[in-house]
Amino acid sequence: MEEKPKSIGITVKKEENFSEWYTEVVTKSEIADYSPVSGCIIFRPTAMGAWERMRDYFDAKIKKLGHQNAYFPLFIPERLLRKEQEHFEGFVPEVAWVTKGGNKELDEPLAIRPTSETIIYDMYKKWIRSHRDLPLLLNQWANVVRWETKAVKPFLRTKEFLWQEGHTAHATKEEAEKEVMTILDIYEKMVEHLLAIPVIKGIKTDREKFAGAVYTTCIEMLMPDGKALQGGTSHMLGTNFSEPLGIRFLGEDGEKHFVQQTSWGFSTRLLGAMVMMHGDNKGLVLPPQVAPTQVVIVPIFFGDKDTILNKCLEVGERLEAEGVRVHVDDRDNYTPGWKFNDWELKGVPLRIEIGPKDIAAGQVVAVRRDSREKTSVKDEEVGAFVKKTLEGVQAALFDRAKKFMLENIRSVSSYDEFKKVLEAKRGFIRACWCGNPECEGKVKDETGADIRLIRFSEEPCFAPCLVCGTPANKVAYFAKAY
Amino acid sequence: MEEKPKSIGITVKKEENFSEWYTEVVTKSEIADYSPVSGCIIFRPTAMGAWERMRDYFDAKIKKLGHQNAYFPLFIPERLLRKEQEHFEGFVPEVAWVTKGGNKELDEPLAIRPTSETIIYDMYKKWIRSHRDLPLLLNQWANVVRWETKAVKPFLRTKEFLWQEGHTAHATKEEAEKEVMTILDIYEKMVEHLLAIPVIKGIKTDREKFAGAVYTTCIEMLMPDGKALQGGTSHMLGTNFSEPLGIRFLGEDGEKHFVQQTSWGFSTRLLGAMVMMHGDNKGLVLPPQVAPTQVVIVPIFFGDKDTILNKCLEVGERLEAEGVRVHVDDRDNYTPGWKFNDWELKGVPLRIEIGPKDIAAGQVVAVRRDSREKTSVKDEEVGAFVKKTLEGVQAALFDRAKKFMLENIRSVSSYDEFKKVLEAKRGFIRACWCGNPECEGKVKDETGADIRLIRFSEEPCFAPCLVCGTPANKVAYFAKAY
Repeated sequence: MEEKPKSIGITVKKEENFSEWYTEVVTKSEIADYSPVSGCIIFRPTAMGAWERMRDYFDAKIKKLGHQNAYFPLFIPERLLRKEQEHFEGFVPEVAWVTKGGNKELDEPLAIRPTSETIIYDMYKKWIRSHRDLPLLLNQWANVVRWETKAVKPFLRTKEFLWQEGHTAHATKEEAEKEVMTILDIYEKMVEHLLAIPVIKGIKTDREKFAGAVYTTCIEMLMPDGKALQGGTSHMLGTNFSEPLGIRFLGEDGEKHFVQQTSWGFSTRLLGAMVMMHGDNKGLVLPPQVAPTQVVIVPIFFGDKDTILNKCLEVGERLEAEGVRVHVDDRDNYTPGWKFNDWELKGVPLRIEIGPKDIAAGQVVAVRRDSREKTSVKDEEVGAFVKKTLEGVQAALFDRAKKFMLENIRSVSSYDEFKKVLEAKRGFIRACWCGNPECEGKVKDETGADIRLIRFSEEPCFAPCLVCGTPANKVAYFAKAY
Repeated sequence: MEEKPKSIGITVKKEENFSEWYTEVVTKSEIADYSPVSGCIIFRPTAMGAWERMRDYFDAKIKKLGHQNAYFPLFIPERLLRKEQEHFEGFVPEVAWVTKGGNKELDEPLAIRPTSETIIYDMYKKWIRSHRDLPLLLNQWANVVRWETKAVKPFLRTKEFLWQEGHTAHATKEEAEKEVMTILDIYEKMVEHLLAIPVIKGIKTDREKFAGAVYTTCIEMLMPDGKALQGGTSHMLGTNFSEPLGIRFLGEDGEKHFVQQTSWGFSTRLLGAMVMMHGDNKGLVLPPQVAPTQVVIVPIFFGDKDTILNKCLEVGERLEAEGVRVHVDDRDNYTPGWKFNDWELKGVPLRIEIGPKDIAAGQVVAVRRDSREKTSVKDEEVGAFVKKTLEGVQAALFDRAKKFMLENIRSVSSYDEFKKVLEAKRGFIRACWCGNPECEGKVKDETGADIRLIRFSEEPCFAPCLVCGTPANKVAYFAKAY
């Protein structure tokens, strides 16, 4: 008695039911799974492999700039969380509380960190004395918890997720503001180069900024269903935390000053963006830069099995020696066709097939996951071909996504037009705005779209305010969002 | 007005008050700090830097053997934790409970993972169907919480700590048992090669094994105060979890079988062992293999400052190009003497001093942290010298620790002798034991020492049971322990 192969294909089309397609791709590709804890998911090896590559990339970049990693407690005493009022009110509705340890009720409930500003800055208060202690540039890789009550959406909406959070303290406002932008630029490059997703960069409105920030900068992506997704945020905190917490330093001028601070983070929700952006009706499509396995070699067993398997292993070793992440699928009881489907579902960027005919001809067959383009490659050229093709896949994924984004940024001059475009196509809608939060709120209430960002570059206003008709002074990018 | 330099030396001697010395070294070297959450510490950059090196070493080793990383939820529903009775009873006294999310009481309290067997194996039940799904070799890097009520001891006894936990499922008992030993061997090598701490390997008694294991293997270290410290454990779980949880696979024989499982972990408590083992009355001493900064270059400013600083930077770049982790201390307002003390306190393995006389003589001065040996090195030989010296420091630390451990393993033939040795010298005490848990318990109750392990190698009994005098069949290693 043999069980049925468990891996069956995607049954929902991406263009027909995006949301169900997403759930199917996530679970069937085995990048993640639902867990017995409602609202929490399991990051399976494909997810962790991609995440580790983002971590290593970002970690190296910030360390080169003098940042260091630390690790602060998971728990935050309620009294600390309360220190910055806006921050507390912003986060308290979604905080999980520990009230019992062992068999004893705690005297003071402990919040599980939704973000770590307050507990980290309580230490900064102790550590920072003099201008010589600045800048203080720390980062931590950690899990955080936000008590979502809406239905879980793997990577995008879960009670627990993984992230990095950077927290810096500087002597001057200028230095802190520079830090905010430096980090945002690294986010942009990471998402574009590693995940092959184009972003737009800019500043959030006051209504949408981080609870406690002076201002928030962000990168935003556009998903295939026309909804925006925030990819990372970098906050200028100014003295908003250092004043209530009392974080001061003795300046070179002999006076005490409050430190100027920043905080910034990106999370595993980027993995969700990657799945949505590149996946297709055959399953996941992983950008080579973050794919834990870049190339899978499938032997076509026919005739002398050992000869074929040895050839596969030999090609595999050669690729590995050139720095390619490769896996030889030597499983016995599956047909090549079943394996092809399985690896396509799992999103491996390039497949190499080697059978007796290929060996006779001194070649291998290579099949791209993104385009399914098939090429016969001479044995001695495999290394160069694979490296070039992986670069090609990475570039093609980015180019396609970029084209899609650019086609879906539309300028409108009236609220009517805005509503029509939003209804018909979604995407980023570029519109002029007077800067009044009431106008912004009205759009949100009436249409569900909010302002994702104002770009840094000065864009001339081409119409009066979308809502109130008074002179506008900002070009805002509206969208419905995840 | 200038503040006092904040870094002052260690005021307690290691040989006089080991415990206070430890606390001073940990906080003053800035490897860790106490936090506003009672029982939780902050891992500062030196700690995280060393931990990341251990992580990378171990991660590469297990990935080469086919293991993959995943990430499972922080929360475990109470009903799941209860699935294996012994496991539940072992952990429930030290579990932290989340009872409130946002503003709502939860229907079922959620445990914060003290270890993740039950939640991980609940998924294994779903994922494992056939012998083809085996072995399943997963690992996660995570934080865990155990609600310690005793006074916090940084790294060694804290409510939250970081660790890796591996969880594997196999088709056969033999394969699982081999896995247990493979991992234990990696632990041994990691601790000996990276942390420069010698270990002894063996098996725990039933009384001391992991709650839920068939048996537990471990590595044990001996600290300078003569107390043992467990460095890592690798558990044979057999079918103890797969039976109550119902994790079965269809074998090649067409029958359903319970999977054979293992779990294994090491944690940030190893950082505590590192501090205790190598630190001295000047502060921390970091083994070069895990030191975030291996070499610090201190300019001796005298005369033309730029020339000196440039020389320091040039030497620094040269070392960096050779793969050495180097820092040039270009701080202005500190004297060289203050900097020497500061870096000694922080444990950097090698210091290089460069002043005008050195430049004139075409040399640098190198000072080892461990022996404080001072050497003049010709400029062109700096690279080779540094690499050789770092290896030398690593080896010297290990050799000294090994000598200490070997001198502190003592064999005794009677309970009286046992008590005398324990009282006078502590260390590992080798004694014969009948195998009865009552005898083991009596020793623990009366002396505070327990059996750390029985070595794998068959050691001939040289006396009757230490306690009851009946024939012994095991040579046990007793010690007081952290």
